[in-house]
Amino acid sequence: MDLDLKSNAVTPLQEQVVAALRAAIAAKRLLPGEKLPSIRRLAAANRISPFTAVEAYDRLAAQGLVVARPKSGFFVAGREAPLTLAVPDAVPGRAAPEAVDPVWMMRQSLSLDDRVIHSACGWLPDSWLPEDGIRRALRGIAAMKGSQLLQYGHPLGYLPLRQQIRLRLAELDIAVTPETILLTDGASQAIDLVCRHLLQPGDAVLVDDPGYFNYHAVLRAHRAKALAVPVTRDGVDLAALERLAVSAQPKLYLTNPALQNPTGLSLAPGQAHRLLNLAQRYGFRIVEDDVFRDFQSVPTPRLAALDGFQRVLHLGGFSKTISAALRVGFIAGPEETIRHLADLKLATTFGNNQVAAQVVHRLLEDGSYRKHVAGLREKLRRTTPPLRRRLEALGLKVWTETEQGIFLWMELPAGAPDATVLAAQAIEQGVVLAPGTVFSPSRQWKRFLRFNIAQSTAPRLIEVLGKLLRRK
Amino acid sequence: MDLDLKSNAVTPLQEQVVAALRAAIAAKRLLPGEKLPSIRRLAAANRISPFTAVEAYDRLAAQGLVVARPKSGFFVAGREAPLTLAVPDAVPGRAAPEAVDPVWMMRQSLSLDDRVIHSACGWLPDSWLPEDGIRRALRGIAAMKGSQLLQYGHPLGYLPLRQQIRLRLAELDIAVTPETILLTDGASQAIDLVCRHLLQPGDAVLVDDPGYFNYHAVLRAHRAKALAVPVTRDGVDLAALERLAVSAQPKLYLTNPALQNPTGLSLAPGQAHRLLNLAQRYGFRIVEDDVFRDFQSVPTPRLAALDGFQRVLHLGGFSKTISAALRVGFIAGPEETIRHLADLKLATTFGNNQVAAQVVHRLLEDGSYRKHVAGLREKLRRTTPPLRRRLEALGLKVWTETEQGIFLWMELPAGAPDATVLAAQAIEQGVVLAPGTVFSPSRQWKRFLRFNIAQSTAPRLIEVLGKLLRRK
Repeated sequence: MDLDLKSNAVTPLQEQVVAALRAAIAAKRLLPGEKLPSIRRLAAANRISPFTAVEAYDRLAAQGLVVARPKSGFFVAGREAPLTLAVPDAVPGRAAPEAVDPVWMMRQSLSLDDRVIHSACGWLPDSWLPEDGIRRALRGIAAMKGSQLLQYGHPLGYLPLRQQIRLRLAELDIAVTPETILLTDGASQAIDLVCRHLLQPGDAVLVDDPGYFNYHAVLRAHRAKALAVPVTRDGVDLAALERLAVSAQPKLYLTNPALQNPTGLSLAPGQAHRLLNLAQRYGFRIVEDDVFRDFQSVPTPRLAALDGFQRVLHLGGFSKTISAALRVGFIAGPEETIRHLADLKLATTFGNNQVAAQVVHRLLEDGSYRKHVAGLREKLRRTTPPLRRRLEALGLKVWTETEQGIFLWMELPAGAPDATVLAAQAIEQGVVLAPGTVFSPSRQWKRFLRFNIAQSTAPRLIEVLGKLLRRK
Repeated sequence: MDLDLKSNAVTPLQEQVVAALRAAIAAKRLLPGEKLPSIRRLAAANRISPFTAVEAYDRLAAQGLVVARPKSGFFVAGREAPLTLAVPDAVPGRAAPEAVDPVWMMRQSLSLDDRVIHSACGWLPDSWLPEDGIRRALRGIAAMKGSQLLQYGHPLGYLPLRQQIRLRLAELDIAVTPETILLTDGASQAIDLVCRHLLQPGDAVLVDDPGYFNYHAVLRAHRAKALAVPVTRDGVDLAALERLAVSAQPKLYLTNPALQNPTGLSLAPGQAHRLLNLAQRYGFRIVEDDVFRDFQSVPTPRLAALDGFQRVLHLGGFSKTISAALRVGFIAGPEETIRHLADLKLATTFGNNQVAAQVVHRLLEDGSYRKHVAGLREKLRRTTPPLRRRLEALGLKVWTETEQGIFLWMELPAGAPDATVLAAQAIEQGVVLAPGTVFSPSRQWKRFLRFNIAQSTAPRLIEVLGKLLRRK
């Protein structure tokens, strides 16, 4: 067909092009499935800008007349259904129970649909987070002379924030210098960097069962093998851990020292000591992921404090308490390891987000962070008991009496469907539940659900769950 | 010793503690090398806060009386020199020529010392970057209702920015949808994600020789093998590339389609076509890293435009033109690949920096970005010829007449020392030079230097280089 689509000059260029293309499609001068001219050709032939050309195709696509195919350009629609975008999309949808895995759950949890109840997710709702403080910090950074807005900055990250993290670690008796702290893009990146540094493909890594599901994903990404260490009501089963250490020679143990995800358990002093001895005896290292630290009002022992970074790396972050949109975490460890990790970070993501680090630094420095996390603990203290009572009224039982942290880890009543079945059914009602299996490398814990307390206050959650439990 | 150090209550707590500890050290009640009480014990014994205790130790450390050892706590100084911090530190220092490798250069380039001339680095000086625009954008985001400051956001990243990137790619005839773009923490992370997705340890990967040195670092991190493809004045040596493809079955080819780093060459249409045919024939994929795009005033062909994402992944970023402190890049590719990369990103860094993406989005949307990059090109157009003349006056020769981009790739005069020797000598004069070898997986190009044009305007650079060249 003739590419010159502009017939007269009364209506805006884009509308003319849209109209001409629509007419050509209607008249079958352009047939279903036919490739349309490239943006540049359309623009050149019609003396319009490429922007206008794209906009024209966009409007036709919105009308269902044109389809964009990422591999090849724009086509007349009609021969096949418009592309469905099978990207990690966040629209709640049906799922067979067997598809209810960590990735499914993460995708559902990242849904932006406000109507969805995110009982499964790992973070606090917006209203609990210090949005005003972040806005204030952004304004401050925008106004401050000398704020670091342009360059990569120090390979270890924004120094004033490292200095504050050092003080925060000292409160836990963990002695570091700012030079043995590396800032990372969230705690997840810290874990990933450690895996890169310490693991070879095929290596075995100890993880808690149940434990944080993203450890499994990151280990898969490193082609490492997750060894499930059973968690009992008294904490990690160290006898089982030792058997695994003997039989599989793990390189690493990834765990939460405090308010373990999902059980809420914290390491007891004796247990911490025995664990470190096992690490020493069997030559594995321990990564303690302390992202829940600020939800604990009285600190329990940290492995890094006992061990002084002989076998332990310590990491944390501010995604849970300040904002997940900023991506600020850190890792502390022996000088030599931190140096290697910094080189790896340089090689694989080059720099740090200086702006985000400055926001976190401001909130820590002006004292508002301390007040904020005290407020969060208080809110959880008030929110947890009524939710627990409502869930108990449905027959669920708490597994451990931790009374702290952002999660409730609860067992389903006898006779209830498995948690994955419930999760697959609940999603159809706009409720994202976290079934125990996603926390389990051995796919056990089928009778458990993890509830994000702050995200589970809507009465509809209890209604939906009650209905599903009665349905059988 | 007795831990209760407070004798009276006249002076501030911290000063009392400092004075008491100093006295104990002076009186040899605490001996050189002796371990000091932990922060918590010191705080508890003296009924002071851990902060005060840390501050006290900090002050003693500043006075050289106490040493913090990351592995074990605080110690009385004296038995050994205080820890030297051997972290990726950025203080210019001596280096033997054989130590002048990419990591050395990156560390030197990240020096925060203003007196250092950063001719080696890959980014523009602060004064060239849109600092006011970033401040304006931060203020806007701080003020805007509904700005995304708290949550992880969509797995693919901030949608409005993806929509704008789609328009920018359309200008290069690259057809994508926002659903086939994944935002990343800088272009470096995009490359890293691709390597994770497509490479197994031991795989071979084609890279340009000379080429961007960080490719070598990222390939090492993936335990992949870099195959050096010679770059000639006419572009990549496709015959050599084909021989490597036959003999080593590479999985990937990492390259810049435009203003190749360091040579400044751009793909010619015929070459692009032949390269794609080679990729097809030998079954490798191509990652085109288009971070220099906005320094090109008239676009040359992009592989993704020709190939429509059959074998090509396309990536870019804004670190060169807006800010390296924000870390905003992207990758575009086939839907299925992008889905995998998004899952990997979720597993390894979880989210995206929403704040940074919003800053970039604002600058693109309000049109200031377009003006800014036009200004950058104009500035380079004015800065390049005088620098080139000054370097030519020292006997250096440009290798290709590209006349665009942010680098000059120049050959040393006959009889001059090797570039690594010059770089090792120049660092002592506070000048960081980029020797050709760091761009070369085969450690060739010993007679070349890459100059960052905008960072090389200081007369002292020419003085130092001139002196070193005369010295022999």
